Amino acid sequence: MFRCGNYFPSPNLAPRRPISYPRPPLPERLVKVIGSISAARRHLRSVNRPIVLVPTMGALHQGHAALLDRARSLAGPQGTVVASIFVNPTQFGPKEDFSRYPRPFAADGRLCAAHGVDVIFHPTGSRMYPDGFSTFAEESVVSSRLCGASRPGHFRGVCTVVLKLFQIVQPQAAVFGLKDFQQCAVIGRMVRDLNLPVRIVAVETVRELDGLALSSRNQFLTAEERRQAPILRAALLAARDAWKGGESSAARLRRLIVQRVGRAPLARIDYVEIADDHTLQPLRQAGDQTVIALAVFFGKTRLIDNIRLR
Amino acid sequence: MFRCGNYFPSPNLAPRRPISYPRPPLPERLVKVIGSISAARRHLRSVNRPIVLVPTMGALHQGHAALLDRARSLAGPQGTVVASIFVNPTQFGPKEDFSRYPRPFAADGRLCAAHGVDVIFHPTGSRMYPDGFSTFAEESVVSSRLCGASRPGHFRGVCTVVLKLFQIVQPQAAVFGLKDFQQCAVIGRMVRDLNLPVRIVAVETVRELDGLALSSRNQFLTAEERRQAPILRAALLAARDAWKGGESSAARLRRLIVQRVGRAPLARIDYVEIADDHTLQPLRQAGDQTVIALAVFFGKTRLIDNIRLR
Repeated sequence: MFRCGNYFPSPNLAPRRPISYPRPPLPERLVKVIGSISAARRHLRSVNRPIVLVPTMGALHQGHAALLDRARSLAGPQGTVVASIFVNPTQFGPKEDFSRYPRPFAADGRLCAAHGVDVIFHPTGSRMYPDGFSTFAEESVVSSRLCGASRPGHFRGVCTVVLKLFQIVQPQAAVFGLKDFQQCAVIGRMVRDLNLPVRIVAVETVRELDGLALSSRNQFLTAEERRQAPILRAALLAARDAWKGGESSAARLRRLIVQRVGRAPLARIDYVEIADDHTLQPLRQAGDQTVIALAVFFGKTRLIDNIRLR
Repeated sequence: MFRCGNYFPSPNLAPRRPISYPRPPLPERLVKVIGSISAARRHLRSVNRPIVLVPTMGALHQGHAALLDRARSLAGPQGTVVASIFVNPTQFGPKEDFSRYPRPFAADGRLCAAHGVDVIFHPTGSRMYPDGFSTFAEESVVSSRLCGASRPGHFRGVCTVVLKLFQIVQPQAAVFGLKDFQQCAVIGRMVRDLNLPVRIVAVETVRELDGLALSSRNQFLTAEERRQAPILRAALLAARDAWKGGESSAARLRRLIVQRVGRAPLARIDYVEIADDHTLQPLRQAGDQTVIALAVFFGKTRLIDNIRLR
């Protein structure tokens, strides 16, 4: 494990999977790992601006790598890229997978080094949530449905930790992945409502060759579940094709997706929603500001994906 | 009325009331009044640091003047003092006095000019709470009792607007009055929990000669109510004397205050609480980290005051 103040050099990792995304040429780098909030503040007050933050829960994959690359490009060669790695307890429900969420910190550090990260902020739970912690940020509209309905309190935890990270790191921009479409929308609304001086940049989902969206939770899938999991993407593409072919009824698009996902015998649908892509409120007619989002269980593993209609 | 971008010179106001507080010698000053959030951001990015913020709802009196003077002294002669004047709708309950809250903006501007303010941030309600506003900051422990119990949602509104002001103004320090003791404690907790990079400075309550704490709401009192209102302070002093004399039972101290306030025939007690001065949770025994706080109605006007036992 790397501790606060340690440095480790870039091993110049080759990507494990044949996925392409723009990657700047990088020299061998040193990554500073900081665990303490006050040390992070001190260090980040002294670094070159702009600071660009990529908040993560670790277990980094090539989807995160795309976020880090975008952050590097936004920060420019002289700016500072900060990746936070923190499995945030307040966004997990009591029956969710907080304790078994993967924490491969050494591999995460190598991926960060290979993708232009200058600082890894890696606090402990008790530093982020000291005794008597009692203040939360909560968005109530964009969070209300989809994952917000399935996971009560999840977005309150997300908003709170992101707000805290913004205050500690003071970034000019922060990069999030569109796989968590609702998370992007909720954070965008929080940033507007609370006047946070941070630009939110959303990056397209990175996928396996068979269409499965990369996720730290994919590693929990059994071989057979993994074989069936691309049905999420296939169903969303089928719905978009139907929409392009003139089908605008949300009910019929939803039915089409439910039927298609039903072809995977191990899949159990949590939700399928056709919603406005800003407010995430349900629509009766799919238009060109529409997102279709779904969550599907394979065993205990819950996968999400989405597609925008444009 | 002053509009965004207007300037007005200091009239070098003499204080209206014979109350003394430390006041730095001030040259004739220009105060910049800004209503737009983006203009405020632009301007404040260009000014000298440190920035010290005094959040107010206007209707400024010599209690606010003491906050402004403290802010001036914290900012130093070269720093920037920002006073926000905004009657924040989200901290008023539906049956409270939002619409009749006084808004004497011209007089407020003169007082700011006389007390070293560089910028008055004076946004409209629709700028601070645009359509679809749906994100709040909420503290749940320190806010739970006293005014929080009497005014549901009040501290959620306070936390949200203060958080927004901190994001817009980006001050190094912010100054609050101890008359609103619970507000100071709630904001202190929020700042800790959300890692806000702002130092909170609390300033002692300024009082009339008869002990009544200055408040923008005192002007609503009838002559007879005004005559009886100093009973709040008298009762708190009596309780502190009893404590100094060895009485530590919270129940008995509370009874003493209730009896004493009862001597004012127009007074109607909202609450009297003996509480820990950090968590504001009720105590059975008053110790040396104790605050006694009360709220008393005179007619429709609700007055608060408090005293710490040390």
